[in-house]
Amino acid sequence: MNSGVNSSPEAASRYPLLDSLGAPEQIRHFTEGQLGQLSDEVRRFLIDSISETGGHFASNLGTVELTVALFHEFDFRTDRVCWDVGHQAYPHKILTGRKDRFKTLRQHNGLSGFLKIEESPVYDHFGAGHASTSISAALGMAKARDLQGHDHYAVAVIGDGSMTAGMAFEALNQAGYLETKKFLVILNDNDMSINPNVGSLQGYLNQLMSGQYYNRWRDRIEHAIKSIPLEGVSKRVAKVAKWSEDSFKRLVVPGLLFEDLGLRYMGPVNGNDAVATAHALREAKEKMADGPVLLHVQTKKGYGYEPAVKDPLKWHGVTAFDAEAGEIKKAAPASAPAYTKVFAEALIELAKKDEKIVAVTAAMLDGTGLNHFQKAFPSRTFDVGIAEQHAVTFSAGLAAQGMRPVCAIYSTFLQRGFDQVAHDVCIQNLPVTFAMDRAGIVGADGPTHHGLYDMAYLRCLPNIICMAPKDENELRRMLMTAIYSDRPAALRYPRGNGLGVAMDETITALPIGKGELLKEGRDLALVACGTLVAPTLKAAEALEAKGLSCAVINARFIKPLDRDLILEWARRTRGVVALEEGIEKGGFTGAVAEAMADEGVVKPLLRLAIADHIVHHGDQKRLLDEEGLSQARIEAAVEAFAGKL
Amino acid sequence: MNSGVNSSPEAASRYPLLDSLGAPEQIRHFTEGQLGQLSDEVRRFLIDSISETGGHFASNLGTVELTVALFHEFDFRTDRVCWDVGHQAYPHKILTGRKDRFKTLRQHNGLSGFLKIEESPVYDHFGAGHASTSISAALGMAKARDLQGHDHYAVAVIGDGSMTAGMAFEALNQAGYLETKKFLVILNDNDMSINPNVGSLQGYLNQLMSGQYYNRWRDRIEHAIKSIPLEGVSKRVAKVAKWSEDSFKRLVVPGLLFEDLGLRYMGPVNGNDAVATAHALREAKEKMADGPVLLHVQTKKGYGYEPAVKDPLKWHGVTAFDAEAGEIKKAAPASAPAYTKVFAEALIELAKKDEKIVAVTAAMLDGTGLNHFQKAFPSRTFDVGIAEQHAVTFSAGLAAQGMRPVCAIYSTFLQRGFDQVAHDVCIQNLPVTFAMDRAGIVGADGPTHHGLYDMAYLRCLPNIICMAPKDENELRRMLMTAIYSDRPAALRYPRGNGLGVAMDETITALPIGKGELLKEGRDLALVACGTLVAPTLKAAEALEAKGLSCAVINARFIKPLDRDLILEWARRTRGVVALEEGIEKGGFTGAVAEAMADEGVVKPLLRLAIADHIVHHGDQKRLLDEEGLSQARIEAAVEAFAGKL
Repeated sequence: MNSGVNSSPEAASRYPLLDSLGAPEQIRHFTEGQLGQLSDEVRRFLIDSISETGGHFASNLGTVELTVALFHEFDFRTDRVCWDVGHQAYPHKILTGRKDRFKTLRQHNGLSGFLKIEESPVYDHFGAGHASTSISAALGMAKARDLQGHDHYAVAVIGDGSMTAGMAFEALNQAGYLETKKFLVILNDNDMSINPNVGSLQGYLNQLMSGQYYNRWRDRIEHAIKSIPLEGVSKRVAKVAKWSEDSFKRLVVPGLLFEDLGLRYMGPVNGNDAVATAHALREAKEKMADGPVLLHVQTKKGYGYEPAVKDPLKWHGVTAFDAEAGEIKKAAPASAPAYTKVFAEALIELAKKDEKIVAVTAAMLDGTGLNHFQKAFPSRTFDVGIAEQHAVTFSAGLAAQGMRPVCAIYSTFLQRGFDQVAHDVCIQNLPVTFAMDRAGIVGADGPTHHGLYDMAYLRCLPNIICMAPKDENELRRMLMTAIYSDRPAALRYPRGNGLGVAMDETITALPIGKGELLKEGRDLALVACGTLVAPTLKAAEALEAKGLSCAVINARFIKPLDRDLILEWARRTRGVVALEEGIEKGGFTGAVAEAMADEGVVKPLLRLAIADHIVHHGDQKRLLDEEGLSQARIEAAVEAFAGKL
Repeated sequence: MNSGVNSSPEAASRYPLLDSLGAPEQIRHFTEGQLGQLSDEVRRFLIDSISETGGHFASNLGTVELTVALFHEFDFRTDRVCWDVGHQAYPHKILTGRKDRFKTLRQHNGLSGFLKIEESPVYDHFGAGHASTSISAALGMAKARDLQGHDHYAVAVIGDGSMTAGMAFEALNQAGYLETKKFLVILNDNDMSINPNVGSLQGYLNQLMSGQYYNRWRDRIEHAIKSIPLEGVSKRVAKVAKWSEDSFKRLVVPGLLFEDLGLRYMGPVNGNDAVATAHALREAKEKMADGPVLLHVQTKKGYGYEPAVKDPLKWHGVTAFDAEAGEIKKAAPASAPAYTKVFAEALIELAKKDEKIVAVTAAMLDGTGLNHFQKAFPSRTFDVGIAEQHAVTFSAGLAAQGMRPVCAIYSTFLQRGFDQVAHDVCIQNLPVTFAMDRAGIVGADGPTHHGLYDMAYLRCLPNIICMAPKDENELRRMLMTAIYSDRPAALRYPRGNGLGVAMDETITALPIGKGELLKEGRDLALVACGTLVAPTLKAAEALEAKGLSCAVINARFIKPLDRDLILEWARRTRGVVALEEGIEKGGFTGAVAEAMADEGVVKPLLRLAIADHIVHHGDQKRLLDEEGLSQARIEAAVEAFAGKL
């Protein structure tokens, strides 16, 4: 990439205007030319910086001009803005004093990849890592403002992908109803969620895109109709005039879907043109005097960096890359396949033999590995968009008619479908399989993405089977177990690669509710589930050498728990250690505590789990170690526990 | 009510046609006159029956003709129907062989007030007690059908209230996108959820109601445009023709919101006219050959019973009533105020002194008692419609700007907002108070409505305070504690009346995380929370007389648990009994087990909680007794536990 400013390699900055920027309020006084220059520099900085650190990329290139325009038109010391998801808000961070910390992006104690109130109490008004919350939050802020007698603006910036989630619709429905003034929804339309967008809404937005010329008519005609004097005329004439107005609106107004919900629709505007966008925002401010406005902004993911424009999916989230060559640096070849891939291949293998197996995902075809399944079985793959609630109940409907749906949703995102899991699947005991990828600590994405709660929030529900595999071969077996259990079943597995174990030639199911004794021992019984089985076994082997003899059990089932096996070894030893990569309140180790109490096994129990606090972003292994769940720390904790018995 | 059929008091039935009905498929061959007669008889039966048993009333009177028409046009041995919520499906039950069991409605071992697959495996295709799941479920069924090579119809019947929930929108968005054939959404529009409906959608539907004449134009114009021969003409002409078609559609097509989502809109039709509705369904069947259809049906809640038409809210769910006089029989005056009322009055009292307090509800103004708050503070009350997700994040937005929102949602319905509680409120540590009414066993509404899971699904989340009051005075104190905790906080309280305790003159907050010792004891420590504190204390007093001395602790806080107090008494006694009206997996008693393990208190622990199974509908007290949580059963269990120590 050519800097375009100064080719002297050392002397001058590649971002002179950006470097000289103090508070972002200075942007309010920028000329149109400066808006363009600032945008170019922010983009250059993004490319320079993300190519070194990695991070969300294509989405942030798309929002540069929109962000600059927002700072030109609003004063976010008082005006409020809620960026949906927040992984397109790097430009916002760059302009609000965090540019120099970008080299720490998504790293331990570094900048978050999302917005976070605590990271910038002045400018980050609402944090988000999950989609579609921004309109609700901004509307709450607008009503707080009204009640407090303030008069600043409240803005939500939401992508077209996020717009498919029901809660965005719920919020629009209320926003229009309340006729909230000084309230703006910016629909950042880039034709994408992470995967290409699905659903009728997208087709609708595309229609609007091609219909810009409608706009030219609109104001003129509306004005003409409104100028018909209605005072003194008969009711009948007034009614006809109203009818005509409505009809003309239907004829010429794009965005009627939004207008029908009570928002004034504006756009589409080219959101990669800072000046045009600033103009549109200014116009929107005027219209907001009457009620809520939806401004439809068209941006391009990857804008200004050709490789990312061509393949925005590949460039959505990247590791470090060679900016000049447009090549993402390849990670060292993994010694073992990723859990995601093992899941996808196993599902394909099982589906080949059983045409009742279908796959459901919520805008995460690639993330869950179901893109592979889709290639093999296009008609048996359903990507419902960012709509986890619907995904779950849609799966329940499939199951009620004899299909065997596998609903693949990340652990943290399945929270969005919790009621549907409870009400539609578990209470009705329907055979839906939930494949929960990214369970446990996910690393760089941080608090909103760690999958810490699934064992607690699923284990309390009736009928459901909950499993966690110790390795990638067991994942395949658990998948088969779940699909053929004829009950609701969930399996959780982590982000990252398996252990490199040998794979069974044929996938076979596991006996439901049976754990696995991996090692006998005299002194203690260590009961681990999922990712912690391997380090626990290694720790036990190391302790054996030190003279502490520990039995090791792979629990396999969080529910139904193998009480017989666990309590047998609890009785045979002096104490129990339970271990999980999940929250310490009500999860697997809680289940072990409950089982011991219920069966009258009165023995010391040490629970090693994720502490009840916010786990920040950073390196997966390091975070796990900080939580006391690395092999070394497990070993130390078990030894200390034994020492106190 | 006059029977209208036969005035001879004993000889003839009041429902001759209904009585003679065998399988509902017979209705397919009924004449138009018979459809009307059958509807009248079903309505008469409903009035006769519900006036004796109580139950959902106004909604079921509204759907009589629609149900009869559905059975006239469809064969539900093969065609599928999903009734949203299901509390308007009594006519469906009456016509499918369950008429004679109606005297057992909502009673122990009797008919459920909702649809349930197990109650009628042939005709109840999907159960529901929560709103807005029907389109998702029916769509899943339609896709199962397609994959299995069948060709029956799939129908969802959804109220306008349910349509405001996001998941209905998510489902419509996919239904249109998939161009699903033989798929019908019936929008049962009665201008109501339980409370009068709110949101822009309602205004939109009302517009459609008044615009029936649009329809007359529609087919003619579309036909004219489509008859323009497009073969051989230039692209430009084709484009103009397409544009004209779209424009004309915009001009003449009502229901464009639905058409924009890819569903063919039909209606509105008078859903209280069985013949007209049957005609519309027949027409819809033809149109479904091309893709999904939405049929807009207008019905009246309470139709055919004047008192219910006049006040559908009062007659939504009723106890037994005098049908002739139109008077609901008054229950014996309660000895103590309902928890709901105490909550509402306390909130008003606190809000009088603090204008930052605002109230948020999701279509449950009356159920939560917030109708009283609304009268006192209309501008500080937000009913967002059936939209729990939005309600929670909207509250988070209010809290982020310094307000003190109290979000009142039933325990079971807050499941719908679980991700928002986790992601928007708890992770950001925002001071939102969740007032969870109907926690624990609710009685007649059954499995979909019992509030059993809240302690498990909330306790796992960071930062949140969870409380349960032992009586109505403590509810007031906990409400204040929550509001001024400056953190997320939830309090759960049951359906029904308080204990009749004396009320403090001034509401005061509780020290956070501190329980209350109610009674000292030598032998055992009984630790109870919420509703079980009172029966536990009584049981302990009875046991004391028998020589078993039990300390009794009112835990007050499920989180943070008062480990000091609980473990002090655990250490001073021979064993611990923990008690809760919540699920036994991961809830309060699980927290006690965890605390004992973590603090090294190795003592026997008896957990008395709701068993991990489906708790059916029936009398609240009887169900509690069956779960072993009545005073008598607590007493017996504690005694037996002590005997084994």
